[in-house]
Parts: sequence; structure tokens; C-alpha cells
Amino acid sequence: MQYDIQLTLDQVHALTKRLLLAQGFNERHANAIANTVTAAERDECRHHGLFRIPFYVNALRAGQASGDAEPTVSKLAPAVIKVDAHYGFSPLALEVADAPLAELAKETGIAAVAINNALSVSALWPEVERLADKGLVAFSFVAASPYVAPAGGTKPLYGTNPMAFSWPRANHPPVVFDQASSASARGEIQVRLRDGRNLEEGWAVGPDGQPTTDPATALAGAQLPFGGVKGAAIAMMVELLAGPLVGDLLSYEAGEKDVANTGAPCGGELIIAIDPVRCIQNGDRAAQLAHGERLFSKILEQKGTRLPSDRRYEARKRTVVEGVTVPTALYEQLLELTTGEYSGKRNAYEGDDLIKGVHQVAN
Amino acid sequence: MQYDIQLTLDQVHALTKRLLLAQGFNERHANAIANTVTAAERDECRHHGLFRIPFYVNALRAGQASGDAEPTVSKLAPAVIKVDAHYGFSPLALEVADAPLAELAKETGIAAVAINNALSVSALWPEVERLADKGLVAFSFVAASPYVAPAGGTKPLYGTNPMAFSWPRANHPPVVFDQASSASARGEIQVRLRDGRNLEEGWAVGPDGQPTTDPATALAGAQLPFGGVKGAAIAMMVELLAGPLVGDLLSYEAGEKDVANTGAPCGGELIIAIDPVRCIQNGDRAAQLAHGERLFSKILEQKGTRLPSDRRYEARKRTVVEGVTVPTALYEQLLELTTGEYSGKRNAYEGDDLIKGVHQVAN
Repeated sequence: MQYDIQLTLDQVHALTKRLLLAQGFNERHANAIANTVTAAERDECRHHGLFRIPFYVNALRAGQASGDAEPTVSKLAPAVIKVDAHYGFSPLALEVADAPLAELAKETGIAAVAINNALSVSALWPEVERLADKGLVAFSFVAASPYVAPAGGTKPLYGTNPMAFSWPRANHPPVVFDQASSASARGEIQVRLRDGRNLEEGWAVGPDGQPTTDPATALAGAQLPFGGVKGAAIAMMVELLAGPLVGDLLSYEAGEKDVANTGAPCGGELIIAIDPVRCIQNGDRAAQLAHGERLFSKILEQKGTRLPSDRRYEARKRTVVEGVTVPTALYEQLLELTTGEYSGKRNAYEGDDLIKGVHQVAN
Repeated sequence: MQYDIQLTLDQVHALTKRLLLAQGFNERHANAIANTVTAAERDECRHHGLFRIPFYVNALRAGQASGDAEPTVSKLAPAVIKVDAHYGFSPLALEVADAPLAELAKETGIAAVAINNALSVSALWPEVERLADKGLVAFSFVAASPYVAPAGGTKPLYGTNPMAFSWPRANHPPVVFDQASSASARGEIQVRLRDGRNLEEGWAVGPDGQPTTDPATALAGAQLPFGGVKGAAIAMMVELLAGPLVGDLLSYEAGEKDVANTGAPCGGELIIAIDPVRCIQNGDRAAQLAHGERLFSKILEQKGTRLPSDRRYEARKRTVVEGVTVPTALYEQLLELTTGEYSGKRNAYEGDDLIKGVHQVAN
């Protein structure tokens, strides 16, 4: 694998936006998706960077995504708003939701947004990081295609159901985690299938319900939640919050609706934002943040520790200056997309060279 | 171990209340704690039932708990209230918080209560189950004494940091989970120490930072979070929510304050309540609950599954009719407490016969 092409983050953004426009996304969607893709490349979360572009393009081509739906905002309750993405991808809906949610949380102390009818293939950390940059504590929950078995079960039911959390800091980017409820990322299993490597114990069961470390058997069976029964409870919680709570699809329903098998399921997202200073009596924000810092100091004084988001922030420092590297083959395929052409297959996960190329980068 | 004494739940309540009054708790506190203890016995969560009584009594005798503090309610923001327990035990503060929080959540759609200065030795499921009984979705987060290492670390920092979640159902008690962020309960390690049994792999490290399955080495070292890095992230989140967010102590701070080592640390709790019907456009509560039921059906149609709270509800059905069994030795010790006497040692975990007896019951 060669890392031949060096791109600045501005170039990543421009390339992404140009190809999305060529593929039929409107200006606002192309810009929002390019922001998300660029942020992922910047933080070296390559699975959510340029790698993701075929997911966006495939869903649009399959007629399952709208390239120009304008998200609409409405108020459901004094502390709850709704953003309907109208079958557009989530990045624009999330950008639209950000300011009203932050404003509402600062007014009421705690507030939520129900995102509906959004195609979601991006990470959750950008939305909770944005809210924490405004001084808020935030949670986000998303369900997706059914891949993961419930506690004690062996058949796919839950999505990989990520949940994200952010905590603001005074002179440092926020502490953020964004983690799937499954033991491993699905992409990691696919990469190991391609590379002929076994899975770790506890990641999956086969169609017969028996534990397996064989990637193909696992993909035909079900992934397992992280951390046994407790992780499965988290997965169930995320499923309920991103589905029935916000009036959107459960993972298995979203899977049934993704008829073209684009891997870009449509569904809901719940984001909760809390203004920490409204949760204490004296309202001293600096003292409250300093209290959080005491915990972080206590964590970091132990050898071998780091805060959940620090690896991303270290990458960010580097890439903002040095840019990122992109394999020539990938770069050329992306360039091809800017002309409106697209040689990739429909199902992003099966035999698509573009995906394969980026999997190698990601790994 | 003999299960000699059969008590109805009313008798459990009356006995508990009588002994707490004799020990110096006032009517309201004695009643609230007896409600909590009885609910735990009813659901066969014996670790939080009669077993817990010495923790309440010890903290009162050590002068660290108030037996008559009246919790005060104040509004911090349009959707946030505060209940200050004034160093009383949490059951009364939680009962006081329940109605205002539920009312506020129904008004604003989402609301939170910051519980402060509460001694907490009870489970979290009673408070979230109560809220779900009123049709609300609820979360609860509590930090406690420092026993658990952060991700990558080997020294105690976090509490066992439970988090609870509840989802209302139409013709069934709510789905509830209430789980520690640690791989195992601390009590389970103590029970295995007493019984000379080894721990499971992954539960703990010794003082040297090396993995151990020896209970004594583990108790001198640190417990580990469940589910590796992801469980550790949950533990960190709970620590931030129950501490700095609500303006209360981190686990290590609570540990430092528990100078008499009563095992009943004082700190904060965050409860979030959401009215699900205020998170959807059409406001059809029945349809929304039916949507949740579709998930539960899909879970239960898989062999080997059950819902997180079902074991408790099955026990409840039994004990409401049949009552519960209490070992004679324990029963006699509890009777002794009703006279105001108390033969137990200060530190509930070390050498207290009453505790030892109940550990045997719990196990």
C-alpha cells in the first residue's frame, strides 16, 4: 500500500465537496458531509473519512437518500426540539440542530433533540464535541442496521449502536468518547476477512449460535455486545433511545428498509445537552470545570492511562500542519467521482475496490 | 446456613422501620429506608435488603449521617431541580425528588434532578422504576468510594459507579437495568475471600498492578471496569455526572471524607427523566409504547434471552405471596437492633458477624 498523495485538510474538504456536488448533493449537504469527512481525516479516524464517501454516494444513487432535503426544526416541548432530516444524510441535520439545541440547553439547563429520518454513516463525536465546545455536556445515541445479538441470544437484532459523551474543558478540547455497543467494529471484521486473520474471542457467533473467530462465519452470524450482559444492556438502551423514544426505526426495521443494502440505514438520533453550570447552586463555571480537571489529573497521573479523545487530538495537531496522506489508487477513484462517474459497486461492503483500498489505509 | 425465619414483606418493613427508629433515625427516614430495604428483599436483591442495615446504622453512629435531615428542593433552571439531602441517606431524598422531577419532565419533556450531600448505599433501580411507572424514561448515575482503576491504570480511582435506566411498558412493570461500571460487585470479591474461592479473570489487579484472581490481593489492589476501555469510559462518565456536574464529590473525594470507613460514602446523584410522548410529533403514547414492545418481542423470541429486570419481577411475584426467608442468626441480630443495642463493629466490611451472616444469605 502506498501513501503517495499528500493533501492539506482544505484539499480534502474541497475534493470531497466537489465530488459530492458532481454526484448530485446540493451545496449545503455537500458542505456538511465534507466537514464531517474532513474532520475524520484530520483526527485520523479514517473509517469515517474519505473511506465513507461510497456510502454517501451509493445511497443517493439507490434513491434512498435525498441530496437536497432541507432539515426542518420544530419544538416538541419546552426542552425538546425535533430536526427532521427528510431522508437526507445526518451531517446537515446535525449542523442545523446544533445552535437551537445549545441555546435551549442554556435556557432550560437540560434539553434534547430528536433527529428523525436521517441517514447516518458518520461518527457521533463531531456533534457532541461541538456542544462541549459551547460549554455543554452532551450525549448522543444512534441505532443502525441489525448486526448484534441481544444478551443471551445469537441472532442479529441491535445495530452496533454507538453512544457518545462529551465533557467540556477550560483550556483544552473536550473529553469525548464515542463507542459502539458491539465488541468490535463491523469494518474490523471485514478487514480481517480480507486479510485472512482470525477475530478475537467474544466478538461474534456463527449462524449456528456457536462462538466463532472466523470472520466469514461471524458476518453470516451475529456480532456480540461489548462487556457481556452489561454491554448488551447499553445496546438495548441505545436502541430504545434512537428508535421508539424519538419515534424512529429500530435497527431491524431500518435494516428491512435499506432494500438496496447500501449500508447507510435511515433512522433517528437522540442528543441530550446539559449546561453544567445550571446543575449547581452557585453557578461558578470555572470552579466546576476545575473539578472535572481534578479527575482528569488523577487519571493521567497513573501510568498507562490516557483520556478517551486524546489520540484524536494528537492526530489533529499533526494533520492541521502536515496534512494527510491518501493512497494514489484511492485518490484517483475519488477524482473520478468528481466527474460524476462512479465505478464502484452498489454494496459498499462486497468487492468494491474503492472500499478495499481504504480499508487497507484504515488498518 | 439456615433459612429459618419466614417474614412477610410487611413484617420486613415493620422490623426495619422499628430498628431504624430505635437506632436514632426519625420517622420519615426510617420509613424511606424501610421502603428501600423491603423493595430489595421483595425482589430478592438481598445485597441491598436487610444486609444493608448495618451500613445505615454504622454511618449514623459514626456521626457521618444525619438521621433527621429534611431534604430541601430548589429549582436551578427551568428543567433542573436540586434536592439537598443535607447528609441524610438517599432514600428519603429520592422519594422527595420523585414527584417534582416527574412533574417537571412532563412539563418540559426532559428534566434532571441533582441530588446532593446524600449517603448512598442502596440500588438505583427503585428511583428509575418509580419514574417509569409514571410513564417516563429515566437514567440515574451515582459515584461512590474509590475502588476501580481507570482505563490503562492499576490504582483505585472510580467508584463502582452504577448507572440505571428504565423504559415504561403498558401492561407490564418497566424494563430496568441497574449495573455497576466495575466488572464485579465489591461484595462478590469479599464473599469469595471468605469462601476461599478465586475471582474470575479480568475482575481486578493487585497492588503491583498485575492481574490477580486472589480476592485478598484484589481488595488491596484495584477492581477493573467491565468491558475494558468501553466500560472504563462509562465509569468515567458516571464519575463526572454524579460528581462535578451536580457539584458533588468525586469518588476519591468521597472516600477521603468517609473517615470512619463506614462504606456509606456521601455524594451526588444525577437523575434524568424524559417524557417519551414529548419526543415525538403525533403524541400517541400507546403507539410509542407498542414500538418498544416490538423490540422486547424480538429479544424474547430468541432462545436464551430475558429482559434485564425480569428476574426481579419474577421474585416479586413470589415474595409478595410467600414472603421472604431470613436466617435465624440475622433475624436475631436485627431484633437486637430494635432495642437500640448494636453489637456490630464500625467497619461493616471487616469482621462484622452480622455482615458475614448476610453475605452468606446474599450468596
